[in-house]
Amino acid sequence: MTLKSDFEVNNSMRNAPIGVFDSGLGGLTVVREIMRNLPDESITYFGDTARVPYGNKSRETILRYSRQIVHFLEEKKVKAIVVACNTASALALDTIEKELSLPILGVVRPGADMAIANTVNKRVGVIATEGTIRSGLYRKLICGADPEMQVFEKACPLFVPLVEEGWTKDPITEEVARRYLGDILEKNIDTLIMGCTHYPLLRSLLKKVVGDSVQLVNPAYETAQALKKMLDEKGLRHDPVSVGEECGRYRYYASDSVEHFMDFANRILPYYSVGAELVAIENY
Amino acid sequence: MTLKSDFEVNNSMRNAPIGVFDSGLGGLTVVREIMRNLPDESITYFGDTARVPYGNKSRETILRYSRQIVHFLEEKKVKAIVVACNTASALALDTIEKELSLPILGVVRPGADMAIANTVNKRVGVIATEGTIRSGLYRKLICGADPEMQVFEKACPLFVPLVEEGWTKDPITEEVARRYLGDILEKNIDTLIMGCTHYPLLRSLLKKVVGDSVQLVNPAYETAQALKKMLDEKGLRHDPVSVGEECGRYRYYASDSVEHFMDFANRILPYYSVGAELVAIENY
Repeated sequence: MTLKSDFEVNNSMRNAPIGVFDSGLGGLTVVREIMRNLPDESITYFGDTARVPYGNKSRETILRYSRQIVHFLEEKKVKAIVVACNTASALALDTIEKELSLPILGVVRPGADMAIANTVNKRVGVIATEGTIRSGLYRKLICGADPEMQVFEKACPLFVPLVEEGWTKDPITEEVARRYLGDILEKNIDTLIMGCTHYPLLRSLLKKVVGDSVQLVNPAYETAQALKKMLDEKGLRHDPVSVGEECGRYRYYASDSVEHFMDFANRILPYYSVGAELVAIENY
Repeated sequence: MTLKSDFEVNNSMRNAPIGVFDSGLGGLTVVREIMRNLPDESITYFGDTARVPYGNKSRETILRYSRQIVHFLEEKKVKAIVVACNTASALALDTIEKELSLPILGVVRPGADMAIANTVNKRVGVIATEGTIRSGLYRKLICGADPEMQVFEKACPLFVPLVEEGWTKDPITEEVARRYLGDILEKNIDTLIMGCTHYPLLRSLLKKVVGDSVQLVNPAYETAQALKKMLDEKGLRHDPVSVGEECGRYRYYASDSVEHFMDFANRILPYYSVGAELVAIENY
């Protein structure tokens, strides 16, 4: 066995993939933003399609599931982890962060930070799953930054199934959105956080419903920016010149329905991918 | 250790509960029918709320989950098992039946039998989850009984989340139902199977959409009837007089969200229940 120098270890770490996980397919909207903003980085994605969705499940269950996935990603030798699921970010990230030596990042904080930076009248709306809303984390982060902020929240459990049905530009979905957003819009918000990874796929429909006076915040985009910053700070950015290895390799794993998984992935990602691998995540 | 006589063993068996399971809460519509039609029987219910829904997951995953739940119910000493989930009945029952010594019954066959008995023009519609439709089991059973039968199927993935949102009498749900049922209704069916345990909770809305010329079949009701017949045939009916024990005891178990579970249970069941117990079903 040869002892590696620090430099070699660092290079191998820099060259390692970023682990990204979600309850299912929605997290691929975060993958899309990482691909666009960090094109040299490799990504290892896990979607928990056998136990999806997380949005209506308890903190204990989400934490157990998230721990199993983090163990799986550690085994895959990732250099950092992105929790590309608002519910898991809201309910499990604070605990897992303490248990883990790898750098880890959720989607909630970058989304909250952008809303704080964007709002002028200090009135922010949040739409998300029941679990995320119940956690109160968006509210806590936004009001924690500035006690004058007011946060108006609404759980929108039908948005995910509507997106998965493919009705992203449908009058029925618009009607559902008007119903869900009615109360929030009356509060005169100027910023609305799309606090679930599926929601950016409803962006144009939501824009139509909220109007020009409300800015939509996409935590997926903000997370890719925060990831870039974190990798730079920790000296973990992939450097294609000095590393001299193939880059931007993408690997997909799922706990169920690998076929359906790739259909969806190829619909929303900028690069065509041929396959995902099935993982018995209960064993991790 | 005292050897029990056959009679004693049989009495203890007759007095045992019926095991009922579902992917989540929908199976409680089957429990409701069993309570109404077999009021002396005790029921042990398991709802897999940590992994709900099953409707869009693969056969392998549904089979693995169903096996774990059957092991759990066997440990609870049930005398028979009712698979109160159309998706699990369609995808896992045939395999589990061969592995199990206990009598077991799904909701698909009783629903199909009733549709066959009811239809006059031999044109039957089936609405269900993607998994149930993909299995083709309703079609196979109905056309197997009479090759002249024609079956028209439609997966309705939004119905479950709409019911769980509580929008069972909502114009949006009616609009979704008209969209889903449009093609089927053009086929001049006279019978429509509500092939998912949540759908009977949409009964009055569906009746409005399909009109008087179409009869709705509720597999939950038919399953309670089939269960009664099966228990009689096997001499397993609870006999309160000869057994002389407390009867009609109901126990509830769930893999997540016990609180939400009892809210829903008490909304739809004829008897008020105070609690469900959390089960780590992955360990079975």
